Amino acid sequence: MGIGNIFKMFQPKDKVFFVLFEKVAEELVAMSKEFHESLLDFDINDDTMLQHMSDYEHRMDDLTHEIFVQLGENFITPFDREDISHLASRLDDIADFMYASAKYIYLYKAPLDPAYTEFTLLIYKSCIEIEIAIKNLNGFKDSKAVKESCIKINSFENIADDVLSQAIVKLFETNDAIKIMKVKSVLEYLETVTDKAEDVANTIDSILIKYA
Amino acid sequence: MGIGNIFKMFQPKDKVFFVLFEKVAEELVAMSKEFHESLLDFDINDDTMLQHMSDYEHRMDDLTHEIFVQLGENFITPFDREDISHLASRLDDIADFMYASAKYIYLYKAPLDPAYTEFTLLIYKSCIEIEIAIKNLNGFKDSKAVKESCIKINSFENIADDVLSQAIVKLFETNDAIKIMKVKSVLEYLETVTDKAEDVANTIDSILIKYA
Amino acid sequence: MGIGNIFKMFQPKDKVFFVLFEKVAEELVAMSKEFHESLLDFDINDDTMLQHMSDYEHRMDDLTHEIFVQLGENFITPFDREDISHLASRLDDIADFMYASAKYIYLYKAPLDPAYTEFTLLIYKSCIEIEIAIKNLNGFKDSKAVKESCIKINSFENIADDVLSQAIVKLFETNDAIKIMKVKSVLEYLETVTDKAEDVANTIDSILIKYA
Repeated sequence: MGIGNIFKMFQPKDKVFFVLFEKVAEELVAMSKEFHESLLDFDINDDTMLQHMSDYEHRMDDLTHEIFVQLGENFITPFDREDISHLASRLDDIADFMYASAKYIYLYKAPLDPAYTEFTLLIYKSCIEIEIAIKNLNGFKDSKAVKESCIKINSFENIADDVLSQAIVKLFETNDAIKIMKVKSVLEYLETVTDKAEDVANTIDSILIKYA
Repeated sequence: MGIGNIFKMFQPKDKVFFVLFEKVAEELVAMSKEFHESLLDFDINDDTMLQHMSDYEHRMDDLTHEIFVQLGENFITPFDREDISHLASRLDDIADFMYASAKYIYLYKAPLDPAYTEFTLLIYKSCIEIEIAIKNLNGFKDSKAVKESCIKINSFENIADDVLSQAIVKLFETNDAIKIMKVKSVLEYLETVTDKAEDVANTIDSILIKYA
Repeated sequence: MGIGNIFKMFQPKDKVFFVLFEKVAEELVAMSKEFHESLLDFDINDDTMLQHMSDYEHRMDDLTHEIFVQLGENFITPFDREDISHLASRLDDIADFMYASAKYIYLYKAPLDPAYTEFTLLIYKSCIEIEIAIKNLNGFKDSKAVKESCIKINSFENIADDVLSQAIVKLFETNDAIKIMKVKSVLEYLETVTDKAEDVANTIDSILIKYA
């Protein structure tokens, strides 16, 4: 795991994984940016955003699939195959839950809760840190910067926990059971996106511990 | 991981794991078949189905336990011990959530939602593909067929996502908060079964990537 | 994995992980004891318990972080780095969900359900068994005792499943949608704590299978 991997790191076959992970991170940044900006100025009758979220989600599926195909073909990988497949799956989860959040916002047609954009901003910031972490993970260029991004993502998840509980308390004050069920469900999907970002940070962190 | 495992594959000690995994798959097919057929012609006052689901769930626990006992005794395994224990746990999850779905259908005594049998049909089809995948995984006989089954299971999970969101939208139209809570909870348990089947497919897929 | 690890087991560097895991287990026992005892004689207007739960949760975060730091520094570990990081994360999950349960009991200000203390007793008993299991895992002193603790934790989780479903059925009899949503949510957090304890037991079990 020591010397062997150091050599592997300089082999060109490696590059394909980092190229793919960087593309994945770019998609997540663009997806979360559009999600956030669209909710800041939302029109339930215009489903362009939902269509775009679905497109992003499909592209993420394709990229994730491509990573798995490459794993099947490349004997040389920059770190353990299990770590690569685990990281790819966790990144895909972020897109899945972001899309699910968007879908239920449209399906329920409930008025937007002010916490929605608090969440989407935290999600957008988390995706930016994921992109930074993945760039710095490439060739284990800058372990310290990777760690800092992971710490930030963890702190965004902690903030999201508080946003969730405060939003739920306010929501119950409406005493409107149907509305509570709908909005609580969306809030929980949104909070899950930040959990999935934290899973990505923890996965990257454990890769660092093994190889850096 | 290469040559070593190829030799291991032909050793008789291996067989015990495939025999056990095939038994597990058979139980899941029978369990999901009875679950589906019983809901097609359901009588809340006859709890025979629930009793059977409980029996299946116990047999699955016993088989899963037996796989773990064998893991503790057999030095030779067809693939990594972690992969065997992971696959066994994920298969057991399918039975657990199928039993939980059945239990809450009886406990809540809510009228059946038409989506229930859409889910149970998808679950039954997924279990059939799991059985096919496990048979073809034995000795890595037919990797292409294994992959095809995994793709089908993934597509069933995608369909289940849509079944869930459409059923929830219709359910909210009743405006009956108590009924919505009960039925939504059962729908979510049923959808989780298809998620667990997808986890099995992904686990099998990652075993293929490592060894085939 | 065989001889190499046997030697590693006698090396002093190892000790740090068991010392940390034993501290973690002690925190969980103290946390679950206070949680249970405080709910037996509960006063919603006195938030001392919530403050203590938050303190425990922070100390658990610090200990978990310390385990990860040591993983990054120690070349020699008593078992695979992945198993150590996995076990540490699963133990931390128990504290996270115990804290979340306490938080929502205070936030919702709903009358306590009698099932709350049934759960907290099961959680407390599970944490005691986790402490026993970890002490006996140290140097693989007593594998049989470790297994027995894991079996007990699994049985507590099974009991918790029944406590949950019976409590939910009774809760629905109130026909009070708002109350049902609040209490059901707390019950589910509490039940999740026992799921997380079961995850710890399964992780310990799989470590036993690999090394004992």
